[in-house]
Amino acid sequence: MSSPRLEPTALLARHRERLDQAVRACTSRTYFAAFEESPSPRLYGESAAAQGMAEFEATLGSTFPLDTPGSHGYVATERSPYGFDLDVSYPRTTDVDPLIAAALMGIRDWRDARPEGRTGVCLEILDRLHGRIFELANAVQHTSGQAFVMAFQAGGAHALDRALEAIACSWSEMTRTPTTALWEKPTRGEPLVMEKTFTVVPRGLALVIGCNTFPTWNSWPGLFASLVCGNPVIVKPHPSAVLPLAITVQVCQQVLEESGFDPHLVTLAAEGPDDRLAATLAVRPEVRLIDFTGGNAFGDWLEQNAQQATVFTEKAGVNTVVIDSTSSFSGMCANLAFSLALYSGQMCTAPQNLLVPADGIDTDEGHLSLAEVGAGLGAALDDLLVDDARAAELLGAVVSPAVLARLDNAAGHGAVLVESRAITHPSYDDATVRTPLLIRLTSADSDVYETECFGPVAYLIATADTAESIGLLRDTVRRHGAMTASVYSTSEAVLSDVREAALDAGVALSENLLGGIYVNQSASFSDFHGTGANPAANASFTDAAFVAPRFRVVQSRRHV
Amino acid sequence: MSSPRLEPTALLARHRERLDQAVRACTSRTYFAAFEESPSPRLYGESAAAQGMAEFEATLGSTFPLDTPGSHGYVATERSPYGFDLDVSYPRTTDVDPLIAAALMGIRDWRDARPEGRTGVCLEILDRLHGRIFELANAVQHTSGQAFVMAFQAGGAHALDRALEAIACSWSEMTRTPTTALWEKPTRGEPLVMEKTFTVVPRGLALVIGCNTFPTWNSWPGLFASLVCGNPVIVKPHPSAVLPLAITVQVCQQVLEESGFDPHLVTLAAEGPDDRLAATLAVRPEVRLIDFTGGNAFGDWLEQNAQQATVFTEKAGVNTVVIDSTSSFSGMCANLAFSLALYSGQMCTAPQNLLVPADGIDTDEGHLSLAEVGAGLGAALDDLLVDDARAAELLGAVVSPAVLARLDNAAGHGAVLVESRAITHPSYDDATVRTPLLIRLTSADSDVYETECFGPVAYLIATADTAESIGLLRDTVRRHGAMTASVYSTSEAVLSDVREAALDAGVALSENLLGGIYVNQSASFSDFHGTGANPAANASFTDAAFVAPRFRVVQSRRHV
Repeated sequence: MSSPRLEPTALLARHRERLDQAVRACTSRTYFAAFEESPSPRLYGESAAAQGMAEFEATLGSTFPLDTPGSHGYVATERSPYGFDLDVSYPRTTDVDPLIAAALMGIRDWRDARPEGRTGVCLEILDRLHGRIFELANAVQHTSGQAFVMAFQAGGAHALDRALEAIACSWSEMTRTPTTALWEKPTRGEPLVMEKTFTVVPRGLALVIGCNTFPTWNSWPGLFASLVCGNPVIVKPHPSAVLPLAITVQVCQQVLEESGFDPHLVTLAAEGPDDRLAATLAVRPEVRLIDFTGGNAFGDWLEQNAQQATVFTEKAGVNTVVIDSTSSFSGMCANLAFSLALYSGQMCTAPQNLLVPADGIDTDEGHLSLAEVGAGLGAALDDLLVDDARAAELLGAVVSPAVLARLDNAAGHGAVLVESRAITHPSYDDATVRTPLLIRLTSADSDVYETECFGPVAYLIATADTAESIGLLRDTVRRHGAMTASVYSTSEAVLSDVREAALDAGVALSENLLGGIYVNQSASFSDFHGTGANPAANASFTDAAFVAPRFRVVQSRRHV
Repeated sequence: MSSPRLEPTALLARHRERLDQAVRACTSRTYFAAFEESPSPRLYGESAAAQGMAEFEATLGSTFPLDTPGSHGYVATERSPYGFDLDVSYPRTTDVDPLIAAALMGIRDWRDARPEGRTGVCLEILDRLHGRIFELANAVQHTSGQAFVMAFQAGGAHALDRALEAIACSWSEMTRTPTTALWEKPTRGEPLVMEKTFTVVPRGLALVIGCNTFPTWNSWPGLFASLVCGNPVIVKPHPSAVLPLAITVQVCQQVLEESGFDPHLVTLAAEGPDDRLAATLAVRPEVRLIDFTGGNAFGDWLEQNAQQATVFTEKAGVNTVVIDSTSSFSGMCANLAFSLALYSGQMCTAPQNLLVPADGIDTDEGHLSLAEVGAGLGAALDDLLVDDARAAELLGAVVSPAVLARLDNAAGHGAVLVESRAITHPSYDDATVRTPLLIRLTSADSDVYETECFGPVAYLIATADTAESIGLLRDTVRRHGAMTASVYSTSEAVLSDVREAALDAGVALSENLLGGIYVNQSASFSDFHGTGANPAANASFTDAAFVAPRFRVVQSRRHV
């Protein structure tokens, strides 16, 4: 080993304060952020942004320096939604037997590092990833299509916070059982005394299956939860978003090696078209943990077929807004417009179904008809997106031709209230940028609105009244799932009924968001992302149920 | 409602000290017991034993007073292993739709009782069950075949402790997230402030599938963990061990009703021959949690087919003892003899495979040959079981004709070192009581010893040396599972190697047990029962992974 050896427990000491803060925040659910979310030069230094972009650009057209056991040849599968090929080549995994064998090679040393050592190493990995945050942000931008600032935040700082949250939550669970205990049972004579030892052991091999839109934010919680609990991790990225996870794996391997562990405890399994690598890996008996973000079809397939593994899935749902009344019509419209526009609605948390009584709503501007509500939303979207350059920074780019085709097709779903228009990106001529489309439906159009139309498409759905809206929220989320729900109402009775419906449906609720908080954003350490209580996801970032099944406790006992 | 209403949170206050003690013990893993394990009149009162037996006897031949929705007619399926029919009739569940509908009817009120209310009610149920401990002990004795004192302890006091442990562990997990939080994010201007509410919601319907040998001890942890986390529970007992769980359900319903909840939150689903009720219930979409104790065939079927549910299984394995050397040959033989004899080896934790080097072991009595080790074990068994009356109190009765047939068949597996003999029970002429059979094998006989031979059968297996023994421990447990492992050695190096093998195989280890602790006994609050890390069980009594998946947290948030 050429680098100086890092002592894992010294790494824990180095990052201990950050860990302790994260553990406290997870417990109190109060505000905490360990990684600065603003890409400001004042915070990150004058040269950081340019250097990160230079590192990204130097990678374009290159072969990414990772060795993956079981790979033969290379694949380059990424094209930026901003209109150019990344042309980065990765080892193509064609033979999973050597990959699995290599991944498992270091499992015993990693187990023996104990929670303290593994946590120290994982926290050091986060620190190193933070050091490459600008490079990561460029990689996320040009695979997901997120605008740069969002890629820096959601793909960098917030993803690091979510990873830290998963590590902190795992730490709490792993250390809740002591490593030793003295057990002394009174009897009529001498007490029976036993000395007991408790050891955290891994479940086995973990598989992380990444998605195209949030390659880091959605993959890191599962990756680091599995790793810190002792499990080797094979990372199978989406073919269109490999680079952010390739950088991740590279950093993991560097820190693992420097701290004396087998670098293949974390590996990248890139694939070519039609390789179906995830399906092959997912049913291997060695794979005991799977984290998946993506569509319902493959998510359901995993839940049904990967029976040897504990499977954590985040799939799709129909995010719903109940609009009953508001104390600030302009505030509501502006808030919803932002939520619809942000990253072109390509977020699992973006609202889709806006339920409004057919006879309109009471507002601070008087009673407004359904048409006026639609017009208000349209005006807010126009206002937000009037300037192409500013709009592009909010919308990002359309991630894939499939999303564009879905958008084009959606105009036929009903009467168009707000048209989608193409935006010319100020920096990237070939970027595909579109504003949100708003379609008018009625509650009878369940064949349309009960399906997620992922992308910049939302439905303004006329209901008989708010009671029907609440019933639809409960019913559609129960049957089709949702990552988010929200409500606008000035009535405490309505808010109470919607809270009850959200509990019944098992979906997180945001109430009367008018300011700088949006329904599609969840705050690490405080907001749970997904509940696991409806069909959209069977897991949550990050609760005990997300981490406790990733390890077991094995004890030994003896008389003293 | 005729009874006075119990206030759930007042019940929590009443039992709060017990809960807090249990939570502390689960955390420290030190000795704790909430329920007195000795059936002594000094502790339980002079009349308690007679009264409990009278209550049991009054039930014989009767129709058990429970109503189960969806039942038609009655079934009486129990025969005491001590030689008489119980002839207790239970409602026969023939239609699961009304049962499921009734079970789910009270779920919202139960959810709204919050962890505080539900925990209070569940702790009160334990208290009431404790009040019927002698009756329960008789019911366990005459369904499982356990001797009375064991039935009182394992089926009564220890089962209550395991149930309390599951409740305490669930309490810790449910209350680790606060019910409200104030989240305040600094910005350049006014901070963003959100008030957040977090609510524990149930997964859905829970199914508990009981076993014949430990109807309470093995069923109560899952039952109470599911119930306290908000899930209605359908209890499907083994047809040969219904009464202990019928009493359990009756007590649950009484306390639920008295505290204002729907009594059908806990129901008994008894079945007739070939009804296959468990298989029918297990794949219903409403069933989201399943706890199963029993054989591998149905356990594996559940894991593979009940994909809509989180499935906790305890199945079978091959419990293994590595015998390398000992500082007390007589102590070792006496300890092992007790473990083999206790309840005729009809425990999932009883040792089966005793691995001894072919050229014998070093002991405090000098080097002893393999034959001398076998003779020592035989002598210890003779000594322990020489008196029929005393032997019967240790052996209990053979639980079923299948176990007896297996025992009869096992004599053909190899050379018989210690014969099994029939014991005449001093009180029950028709009881089937047998002493353990010890068969000599070699490490080549894997076709025999790699299968669990549930009942009073053990194998003394000659290995090349202790290294081979350790290799066999690691390999057989990895592939076939085990609930327990133990080792006898005076060598620190050997102990270290066996600990390592136990960690690799994921099995709990007991070292050099010579006194009043036996490998087949696990202490509530301190010893984990099963690890979930080998094929014998996918869960453990009681760790966070056993309880955290039984609920979800649903949040709402709003500006202050």
